[in-house]
Amino acid sequence: MYEPLTERSAIELAERLRLFPEDASLSCREIGDGNLNLVFHIVNTKDGHGIIIKQALPYAKVVGESWPLTLKRAIIESQALRTFASYVPEYVPKVYYSDESLSITVMEDLSHLQIARKGLIEGKTFPLLSEHIGEYVAKTLFYTSDFGMNQQQKKQLAQQFTNPELCKITEDLVFTDPFFDHDTNHFETELRQDVEKLWSDDVLKREVAKLKRTFLTKGDALVHGDLHTGSIFASETETKVIDPEFAFYGPFGFDLGQFFANLLLNALSRNEQDRLPLFSHVEKTWEVFARTFSELWETKSEEVYAKADGFLEDVLRETFTEAIGFAGCEIIRRTIGLAHVADLDTIEPFQRRLDAKRHALRLGRELIVHRSTMKTMNEIKRFFEKTSLVNN
Amino acid sequence: MYEPLTERSAIELAERLRLFPEDASLSCREIGDGNLNLVFHIVNTKDGHGIIIKQALPYAKVVGESWPLTLKRAIIESQALRTFASYVPEYVPKVYYSDESLSITVMEDLSHLQIARKGLIEGKTFPLLSEHIGEYVAKTLFYTSDFGMNQQQKKQLAQQFTNPELCKITEDLVFTDPFFDHDTNHFETELRQDVEKLWSDDVLKREVAKLKRTFLTKGDALVHGDLHTGSIFASETETKVIDPEFAFYGPFGFDLGQFFANLLLNALSRNEQDRLPLFSHVEKTWEVFARTFSELWETKSEEVYAKADGFLEDVLRETFTEAIGFAGCEIIRRTIGLAHVADLDTIEPFQRRLDAKRHALRLGRELIVHRSTMKTMNEIKRFFEKTSLVNN
Repeated sequence: MYEPLTERSAIELAERLRLFPEDASLSCREIGDGNLNLVFHIVNTKDGHGIIIKQALPYAKVVGESWPLTLKRAIIESQALRTFASYVPEYVPKVYYSDESLSITVMEDLSHLQIARKGLIEGKTFPLLSEHIGEYVAKTLFYTSDFGMNQQQKKQLAQQFTNPELCKITEDLVFTDPFFDHDTNHFETELRQDVEKLWSDDVLKREVAKLKRTFLTKGDALVHGDLHTGSIFASETETKVIDPEFAFYGPFGFDLGQFFANLLLNALSRNEQDRLPLFSHVEKTWEVFARTFSELWETKSEEVYAKADGFLEDVLRETFTEAIGFAGCEIIRRTIGLAHVADLDTIEPFQRRLDAKRHALRLGRELIVHRSTMKTMNEIKRFFEKTSLVNN
Repeated sequence: MYEPLTERSAIELAERLRLFPEDASLSCREIGDGNLNLVFHIVNTKDGHGIIIKQALPYAKVVGESWPLTLKRAIIESQALRTFASYVPEYVPKVYYSDESLSITVMEDLSHLQIARKGLIEGKTFPLLSEHIGEYVAKTLFYTSDFGMNQQQKKQLAQQFTNPELCKITEDLVFTDPFFDHDTNHFETELRQDVEKLWSDDVLKREVAKLKRTFLTKGDALVHGDLHTGSIFASETETKVIDPEFAFYGPFGFDLGQFFANLLLNALSRNEQDRLPLFSHVEKTWEVFARTFSELWETKSEEVYAKADGFLEDVLRETFTEAIGFAGCEIIRRTIGLAHVADLDTIEPFQRRLDAKRHALRLGRELIVHRSTMKTMNEIKRFFEKTSLVNN
């Protein structure tokens, strides 16, 4: 049944689905990076209107390696997009069609926007990014949690979003391999001493162990599961979260942590005077998240204990602590693990890149180890400064 | 397809399954309490050898009320019995056969043993009870957790044991209704003032809210889900855990907490000088649990972080705290909620019963509120004494 689409069969599919007017003149280009998915961009050359057809490939290619990867992730992705669209239609691409046997999702063309990571590396700031992501995270988490959803329906949704194979990637690449001398890691030879210090850091490993356990066991809500700045399309006015193939029932703090980490990784790549917009984004994301989540809690909660004195504060506090810890893990793995970020890897000259990566390792470590005593989001900035090369 | 068995069709089924010799002379008696299940005891009158056929009914009857209840619980029960049997065959009844469409499980006859609650009420002590239950809980939890099982298989097992309807009973009757003026509660008029004090106790409710959230979200391992002393068959030498129809992926501390609570509820029904065996059981259960779990952790863990310094202690500590909190909830709900225990309800004279129930409410409250600062299991005894009528 399954076979990879070609540019030709992608156009035929679009025609069959009548997604364009009868007299449209369609052109198609495969624009995926070829690692995990085929991505076809089909445009009606008469009016410039387009669609995206995304098809999962039955294997993953990363740094030359190839391993089989479940096609079920395409089902998870289209179902997650539809689920999220029911709560935050403004922040996710519209899904026009999906086909489980072909592992395809046909969706809105977002090519008028830019991948946030790319824009941030170019020095853009996307002024509404944190406001939008804070609201996106608050609503998707609240409405799919035991607070915003019937608790029995939630269990069935969690069952549907069981996603062992994609979770395994996170368990290995985010929470495990970077903290051990594992062959998936890669980093500059010059960093070896810093990395070995990390590997022998018992205090750190005990805390990462607990964070991994939280990731493995705590099913708070349907999380995106891979909310880095490469999973976000943005402009000055719009924000769209894409690629939820890692979606599963996970802890409240996970998406926030990944997002914070990737903002901070970008900050690490910038000169001191250009970092402020990133810190502001981190703080604003939390502020909007906490405010939106609290409003929903007060007005829409399905849980009778939502009215219990202090309980909301407990939940927010725990989410905050988790997010900081997950952010620390993400910063470290993006520096020395299998999948790097361009923010750090493109820093020139080389010595500055090394400095930034050493700073990243120290920052990641401090966030993980001190997450429970941090009280406000602007402490992140303090830790960022404390761990910069200047003060070490 | 589904229809309730009769004593006649139960015998026919046993014959069809060839569970007895050809020349057997079978007699059958329905021995269930008629609330949730039919239980047929079939005996070969020639040699006294027997079997049990348990069939789920499509409704539940509690205090005269009747509501529909999923037959799927029979599947959960037989699958849980088989899963647990693969780790602790000595502590669960053997399953000979199960039929999903008929909602039946055919299993070992345990009529040579006594329900532990009944024996404890009669003043028996079952000297090996805590040793066996400690080992049962340690092994079933460890081997079905992310520490003792491949983490991807664990997710699939958790998916299989999604059990929303039975979990809802616990969510309502253990964690919610008893802490609010809900019509499922029932208690002696004389207790009204004590109960109202509980309902207006904001400190308590905030903590119960967190415990309920842990129950709703934390999928550590396949828990029995209803491990009170009425779910345990025992003798001087044997212990068998039955009725895992509430099984689901829940927190490590849940089964321990329910078991502790029911030991303490029995202690509450006894004179001071007869309580020691119960406290010893509580302490011994934890001791055997912690020792067995630690040995498995050291020798069989699938999780590389099992070797991280201090991590085992963190997990045990968290399990301990949870168990104490869950025990407190169970003690309170068994005193004023829908489903009482005979241990308390049969105390005579009436005034002694009221005293014991007031003591139960105070004890439950203290365990919940102080669970995080309790360090060793013998503090339970201290709290028990502190909350007795004499000192209040």
